[in-house]
Amino acid sequence: MIKAVVVGYGNIGQYVVEALKESPDFEIAGLVRRSVPSELPAELAGIQVVDDVNKLTVKPDVAILCTPTRSVPEEAKKYLALGINTVDSFDIHTQIYDLKTELDAAAKEHGKVSVISAGWDPGSDSVVRALMLSCAPKGITYTNFGPGMSMGHTVAVKGIEGVNAALSMTIPLGTGVHRRMVYIELKDGYTYEDVSARIKADPYFAHDETHVIAVDCVEDLLDRGHGVNMTRKGVSGKTQNQLLEFNMKINNPALTAQNLVNVARASMKQAPGAYTMIEIPVIDLLPGDKEKLIRDLV
Amino acid sequence: MIKAVVVGYGNIGQYVVEALKESPDFEIAGLVRRSVPSELPAELAGIQVVDDVNKLTVKPDVAILCTPTRSVPEEAKKYLALGINTVDSFDIHTQIYDLKTELDAAAKEHGKVSVISAGWDPGSDSVVRALMLSCAPKGITYTNFGPGMSMGHTVAVKGIEGVNAALSMTIPLGTGVHRRMVYIELKDGYTYEDVSARIKADPYFAHDETHVIAVDCVEDLLDRGHGVNMTRKGVSGKTQNQLLEFNMKINNPALTAQNLVNVARASMKQAPGAYTMIEIPVIDLLPGDKEKLIRDLV
Repeated sequence: MIKAVVVGYGNIGQYVVEALKESPDFEIAGLVRRSVPSELPAELAGIQVVDDVNKLTVKPDVAILCTPTRSVPEEAKKYLALGINTVDSFDIHTQIYDLKTELDAAAKEHGKVSVISAGWDPGSDSVVRALMLSCAPKGITYTNFGPGMSMGHTVAVKGIEGVNAALSMTIPLGTGVHRRMVYIELKDGYTYEDVSARIKADPYFAHDETHVIAVDCVEDLLDRGHGVNMTRKGVSGKTQNQLLEFNMKINNPALTAQNLVNVARASMKQAPGAYTMIEIPVIDLLPGDKEKLIRDLV
Repeated sequence: MIKAVVVGYGNIGQYVVEALKESPDFEIAGLVRRSVPSELPAELAGIQVVDDVNKLTVKPDVAILCTPTRSVPEEAKKYLALGINTVDSFDIHTQIYDLKTELDAAAKEHGKVSVISAGWDPGSDSVVRALMLSCAPKGITYTNFGPGMSMGHTVAVKGIEGVNAALSMTIPLGTGVHRRMVYIELKDGYTYEDVSARIKADPYFAHDETHVIAVDCVEDLLDRGHGVNMTRKGVSGKTQNQLLEFNMKINNPALTAQNLVNVARASMKQAPGAYTMIEIPVIDLLPGDKEKLIRDLV
């Protein structure tokens, strides 16, 4: 059994605990939170909850980092230094390679493995994107997100003056173009016109078609469903018009959590170093007998 | 540059030559055919064509086997013994694991790599199937083929008494159920009713909805387009109704050939042994700088 510690118990952390309970080859070594509440929720019964990984009675093989993306580099280095593999869903696309370089050195120094950016995009979508490119090396891939809530855009709207609560939905218009549907609760004393203009001028929204809608209760609109439509039209060898497409309609944190558990498993089978999902054989994501997997899947 | 020898120059072999010419990191070490024609077609200009790999002036790194599936085990062992990696698109699903076991031993004995069953199904579809399973470990995956020509079924029909020429098309009806549309030219002296009954009674067709249609010229119907629709509805962790789908509409031999070239490339980066595509990181299928690939794809 692989001993996993879950670090952080927000949205993703809760789904990771569920996914670990459903995985035949894992046991939960514990949960690390910034502070330990005096009363634990029912779903954590039997799980050791601590504010410091060194307090766990079982030494974990792998830490599943469910902390905010910006704290991933520091947390990962801390766990690697303790001789524990790490996995994360770090999602700032432009910084992924630099994080890999940084954690690769740390992982090798301690003889451990770190798998980074292993949610669904970046993550399992990246695997499909790489495979589609390989199938038709010339051509264009479009990744269309949604409909679903954009965490980053929602946070951006919440920071704008006059906004009490917000939800930014990403709507796919095809060929990688997206519409932003922004639902807000107005603060008292602010007008829809002023706040709407501020949102549309924000760098997060200035380049996209953005619609702002005032509602009474944003909470009533929240849904964790999300989706992707990836298409590639390209050329295999000299043969044009090869058409490939991948679609998902999924619960966002549930898939992120499942992918994190899968790469935690895969981390036990890689040589020391840091990896993205496209650098790991897909069979390593799966539990069970290798012969049976090959017989069933190939 | 990776030096590849193409073994066999049927349908797949011709597309492999095209794909190699389009690949920035390959050179064609030569083409091995059972007999060398006195006049070569224009597209083989500048390529050494021999009836024995030992006659090539350049020693290949990898042999791309484009021979019939049943000759793959013997051919692969021959090339491995010569110290040459092999790749193939062996497609008898029930025998893949046994072939892997056999070639794994041969590859390790000679310190070489063999990648087997690397067409599109088995092949790139297998990678998507494994990834979908990992994303939603409980649930059902359906692989729906077509519309497209089934090579195996077409050969089966051609073997039936009274058939002059044949084409068996696979039509997807969903949930892995397929219709067979069989187009035949009747031999003189045979009736449609007799031949049609024989086809429908054949083990290849007895369990599927089969329609037999007599035509004047089967050749006029031939098209190498094919397709797949793979769906999975399953559970990530404890979260139900995760929906995943992969679609392709492709030129069949062109994609098979591209995948063969991709695994020939990947064969240069694996430890000695035999592999299916699900055991190889997808990044190894791609040419070019690893840093750029990760920055572009993840």
